[in-house]
Amino acid sequence: MKIAVLGASGHIGSSVVDALRDRHEVVAVTRSSAPGLDATDAAAVTAFFESIGELDAVVAAFGSVAFKPLAELTADDYRDALANKALAQISVAQEAVRALRDGGSITLTSGILAREAIATGAAASAANGAIESYVIGAAAELPRGIRINAVSPTVLLEATGYHSAFPGFKPVPAADVALAYVKSIEGVQTGRIFAV
Amino acid sequence: MKIAVLGASGHIGSSVVDALRDRHEVVAVTRSSAPGLDATDAAAVTAFFESIGELDAVVAAFGSVAFKPLAELTADDYRDALANKALAQISVAQEAVRALRDGGSITLTSGILAREAIATGAAASAANGAIESYVIGAAAELPRGIRINAVSPTVLLEATGYHSAFPGFKPVPAADVALAYVKSIEGVQTGRIFAV
Ligand SMILES: NC(=O)c1ccc[n+]([C@@H]2O[C@H](COP(=O)([O-])OP(=O)(O)OC[C@H]3O[C@@H](n4cnc5c(N)ncnc54)[C@H](OP(=O)(O)O)[C@@H]3O)[C@@H](O)[C@H]2O)c1
Ligand SMILES: NC(=O)c1ccc[n+]([C@@H]2O[C@H](COP(=O)([O-])OP(=O)(O)OC[C@H]3O[C@@H](n4cnc5c(N)ncnc54)[C@H](OP(=O)(O)O)[C@@H]3O)[C@@H](O)[C@H]2O)c1
Repeated sequence: MKIAVLGASGHIGSSVVDALRDRHEVVAVTRSSAPGLDATDAAAVTAFFESIGELDAVVAAFGSVAFKPLAELTADDYRDALANKALAQISVAQEAVRALRDGGSITLTSGILAREAIATGAAASAANGAIESYVIGAAAELPRGIRINAVSPTVLLEATGYHSAFPGFKPVPAADVALAYVKSIEGVQTGRIFAV
Repeated sequence: MKIAVLGASGHIGSSVVDALRDRHEVVAVTRSSAPGLDATDAAAVTAFFESIGELDAVVAAFGSVAFKPLAELTADDYRDALANKALAQISVAQEAVRALRDGGSITLTSGILAREAIATGAAASAANGAIESYVIGAAAELPRGIRINAVSPTVLLEATGYHSAFPGFKPVPAADVALAYVKSIEGVQTGRIFAV
């Protein structure tokens, strides 16, 4: 398969690339790669999928959000969280269809805060919930057997800076999270949220 | 209790007002009421809750989204859905805290498309998912015993224009949906999604 991984240099994206590259042709994409993409730019997303050629799978593993106490989160923080994570990943999903072969797949990245609370996590929760419900809504309408799933990880073992914000959450190795992307890409399921 | 109902002239909001007004002082708010509020204007939301006086409960029952086939939904449709429904309701929740008395409540409105798919529903799904996960995330961080829940209705009996888009979904009377708001306001639960 030919697979584009967006966010390929990140904790998650680099593990996904590692899990795929022995068996597949992987196009590793970040804002500074060539080809590169800033997925918050909707016109750039369209242009990217018009020029990349045919793909079998697209992974979106990016999207930063502000972590702040609830009372300090501003309207701009929420707008940015939804724009940088939810809208950018949705934009990738919408536009990826034009490049995907029949039966291809889209895998987005949400996170455990869609369904569990931590202090400082409300903006992340909103963005993750938008992605997960979008996946449920969109799966049934995708054409040509194209599938879509989200991987919803808990905090990563490698993301040590976040460990104290997730008390009692068992950190998961990025390599284990990468398996859920393999399941989404090489498996048959659609409209699923894979919690890891 | 003194309760502000935002979206008070809508299918849902008017039923919520009907269910509350015999026992409570209800402030019915729309964009054209006095006092009025366009909840998509973050500065206006702040000003509204600074001037309204002390409240015991706030209900947000507004938020339009585009219903279109997946392939026709544009980046602007998704941005507008998240802005008009999710960000506007989140903004109300964030700013309502300044007017709410100890133990007061916030009740937002999502919808069944957070967890079920219909053709043309993907943008609504994204907005509903953002609201539901925000409620889960925010509940634990609210101060002074203030609670927050979302009511997540299926299609309303009264919203006949939407019935054909929801095949096999049993429409629910707005009066039944209003009961879930009463449960949220007069009950004790927080961080809950009340599916109706
Ligand atoms: N880390 C965790 O513990 C954890 C847990 C649950 C969920 N998640 C979620 O998983 C996703 C990835 O997290 P991560 O920790 O792997 O992130 P990360 O280490 O910060 O890496 C982000 C990756 O995305 C790229 N990127 C950033 N902004 C981009 C944009 N606008 N367009 C295209 N590429 C962009 C970055 O490269 P450039 O900066 O060079 O563009 C980098 O490759 C995020 O949505 C995060 O919320 C993370
Ligand atoms: N109808 C259904 O079957 C159904 C099912 C599930 C979920 N929902 C959700 O429930 C919510 C209400 O639906 P509905 O059918 O009751 O709506 P509706 O009949 O269209 O009424 C909307 C209400 O909100 C007010 N409003 C609109 N935009 C506003 C804004 N920016 N700021 C403040 N007030 C605003 C409207 O008054 P003005 O226009 O005068 O401001 C009106 O009072 C929506 O989020 C909808 O998605 C509806």
